[in-house]
Amino acid sequence: MTNPHSSDLRRSPVTVLGLGPMGVALAGSLLAKGHAVTIWNRTPSKGDGLVAGGARRAATVAEAVSQSPLTLVCLNDYATTHEILDPAAEALSGRVLVNLGSGTPAEARSAAAWAAGHDVAYLDGAIMVPPPLVGRPDAVFLYSGSPGVFDPHRETLASLGDPRHLGADPGLAVLHNAALLDLMYATMNGFLHATAMVASAGVSAVEFADLAVNWFMPTVIDATLIAQAPSLDKGDYPGDLGTMEMNANALEHITRTSVEQGIHAGQPRLMRRIAERAIAEGHGGENYLAVFEIFKKPEPAE
Amino acid sequence: MTNPHSSDLRRSPVTVLGLGPMGVALAGSLLAKGHAVTIWNRTPSKGDGLVAGGARRAATVAEAVSQSPLTLVCLNDYATTHEILDPAAEALSGRVLVNLGSGTPAEARSAAAWAAGHDVAYLDGAIMVPPPLVGRPDAVFLYSGSPGVFDPHRETLASLGDPRHLGADPGLAVLHNAALLDLMYATMNGFLHATAMVASAGVSAVEFADLAVNWFMPTVIDATLIAQAPSLDKGDYPGDLGTMEMNANALEHITRTSVEQGIHAGQPRLMRRIAERAIAEGHGGENYLAVFEIFKKPEPAE
Ligand SMILES: [Ca+2]
Ligand SMILES: [Ca+2]
Repeated sequence: MTNPHSSDLRRSPVTVLGLGPMGVALAGSLLAKGHAVTIWNRTPSKGDGLVAGGARRAATVAEAVSQSPLTLVCLNDYATTHEILDPAAEALSGRVLVNLGSGTPAEARSAAAWAAGHDVAYLDGAIMVPPPLVGRPDAVFLYSGSPGVFDPHRETLASLGDPRHLGADPGLAVLHNAALLDLMYATMNGFLHATAMVASAGVSAVEFADLAVNWFMPTVIDATLIAQAPSLDKGDYPGDLGTMEMNANALEHITRTSVEQGIHAGQPRLMRRIAERAIAEGHGGENYLAVFEIFKKPEPAE
Repeated sequence: MTNPHSSDLRRSPVTVLGLGPMGVALAGSLLAKGHAVTIWNRTPSKGDGLVAGGARRAATVAEAVSQSPLTLVCLNDYATTHEILDPAAEALSGRVLVNLGSGTPAEARSAAAWAAGHDVAYLDGAIMVPPPLVGRPDAVFLYSGSPGVFDPHRETLASLGDPRHLGADPGLAVLHNAALLDLMYATMNGFLHATAMVASAGVSAVEFADLAVNWFMPTVIDATLIAQAPSLDKGDYPGDLGTMEMNANALEHITRTSVEQGIHAGQPRLMRRIAERAIAEGHGGENYLAVFEIFKKPEPAE
C-alpha cells in the first residue's frame, strides 16, 4: 500500500496534455480520485506540483498518450491542439481522445474528423466550472460525440465532475458552452446595467442584489423561462397576456429612464430595436418570446 | 353581519381610480380582504363586476377620493394621472394618494411635488406582478416616498401583496421597476439568444431550459451576482481569477459562434464592444464586473 493509487484497481489510467490552470486542476482531481495520471506540457515545470503528488511526467506527447486508454487535452485553441497531437496520431490510434479545450462547433467537428482519420475515438467536451471547482460531484462537464465512446468512460470522466452527454454531434459541447456563456454574459450585463440604474439614485448593489437575485430572478424570470420553453419549440406566441408592441413600449421606457438617469443606454436601446424588428416582421400582436424568431436568423445588414 | 365588510372594522376604506386590468385586480383584492372600496373610472361600466362584488361607484373623482383616507391611482401614464387628479386636488387635501401607474423617476418626483403643493400625502409605487397575482402574499409591490406616509398604511397596502418601502425619494419605486424589467428583458433576451444558438444544431428549447435555467442560472449566475455585489459597491474588480481581456475574448468567441451558426449576433457583438470600451478605459486587467463602470455613464457618441 505504498502507492495510494494501487488501492483502487478499477480507476483507469488517464493522460493529461496541457497544464494551464485548468489542466493542472483536471490532473490533480484525477490523482485525488486514485487514477494513475501521466502528464505532458510544453513547459514541463508546470507539472512539478503534480509529479510531487504522484503523476508521471512524459517526455513527449506520443509517450504520454501511450500510457493510458484515455487522454484529456486542454489547450487554449484548436490550432495548438492540432499542432501538438499531429505527431502523436499513431500513438493515439485505437485510444480515446477527449478534447476539453475551447473552440467553435465547426472546429470541434473538424477535430473529430481528424481523429476519425487516424482511428482515434473522439469526444469533445466543455468545462462549465472554474479550476477550483473541478472534481466536485456537481461540477458540470458537457460532452458530445459517439455515445459508444462516452458510455464506457463515463465513470472515469465522473472523477472530474458531473459528466453530461449531449449527443453524437461533436459540436454540441462547445455550442452549449458558448450558449451558456452567452446567457451568463447577457444576465450579468443585465444585472450590472440594472444596478447602474438604481446606483444613479444612490442605491447600493448589495441592496439591489437582494431584491433582484434573491427574489426577482428565481421567482419571476426563471419560472417564466421554464414555463414558456415548450412554446418556443412550437413557435407559438399568443399575445393574450401582453404583446410585442407593449413590450417594445416598455423597452422604450427603460431606454428613456436610462438616459434620464445619465447612464449607458446601449443595451436597452438594442433590445428595443430587436423588439421593433420583431414587430416589423409581423410579430407585433404576439408575445415577447417571438423575439426568438429574430434571433434564429442573422441580423439584416444595416 | 349582512355586510361582510363590517366584519373586520380594522380594514381601512380605499378608493381606486383607473379600472384597467390592474386597477380591477387591485380593487378586487381589496374587496376580498374586507376593505370598503370606492371606485371611479372614466368609462364607468369597467367597474360593473366590482360593484356586483360590493364596491361603491362614485360619479366623480372628487367624490371617490372623499370616501377614503387612501386613494390608489393606476393609470397608463403620468399625464393622464395629472389630468384626472387636478380637479380633485381639494378633495384629496389631507388624504393619502398612492400612484401605482408607470412613469420615470422624474415624473414620480414631479407628481410628489404636485401632491405636496396641495397638501396631499404621496407615495409612488410599482407593481411587480401581473394582475392575476395581485393579492397573493408574495406579490411584490415597491413603494417610495415619506416613511411617515408609508408606515401607517403598510397594513392596508399588505392587502395587495408584499409591500416593500425603498426610501423617501419618490422616484425609487419606478426606478427599481425599470431596473428589474431591464434585468428581466436582458435575461430573457440572453436566454432566447442562447436557445437560438443551440436550436441551430437541432436542440430543443425544453432541453436547453433544463440545463440553463434549472441548473446553470441558479447555481452559477445567481451565486456569482450575490457574492460579487459588495465589490460593485466598492468599485473593486481584482483580475486574479480572470481579466476583462479574457472576457472580451470569450465574447468575441460567442459572437463568432453566432455568426458561424447563422443566428443573430447583435447582442454578443454589443457586449463585446462594451467590454472593449472597458479595456480602452483602463479596466483590461480587472475582472468582468468593471463593466459596471461603463454602465454608470452615458455611452460616448459614436
Ligand atoms: Ca471543447
Ligand atoms: Ca408608479
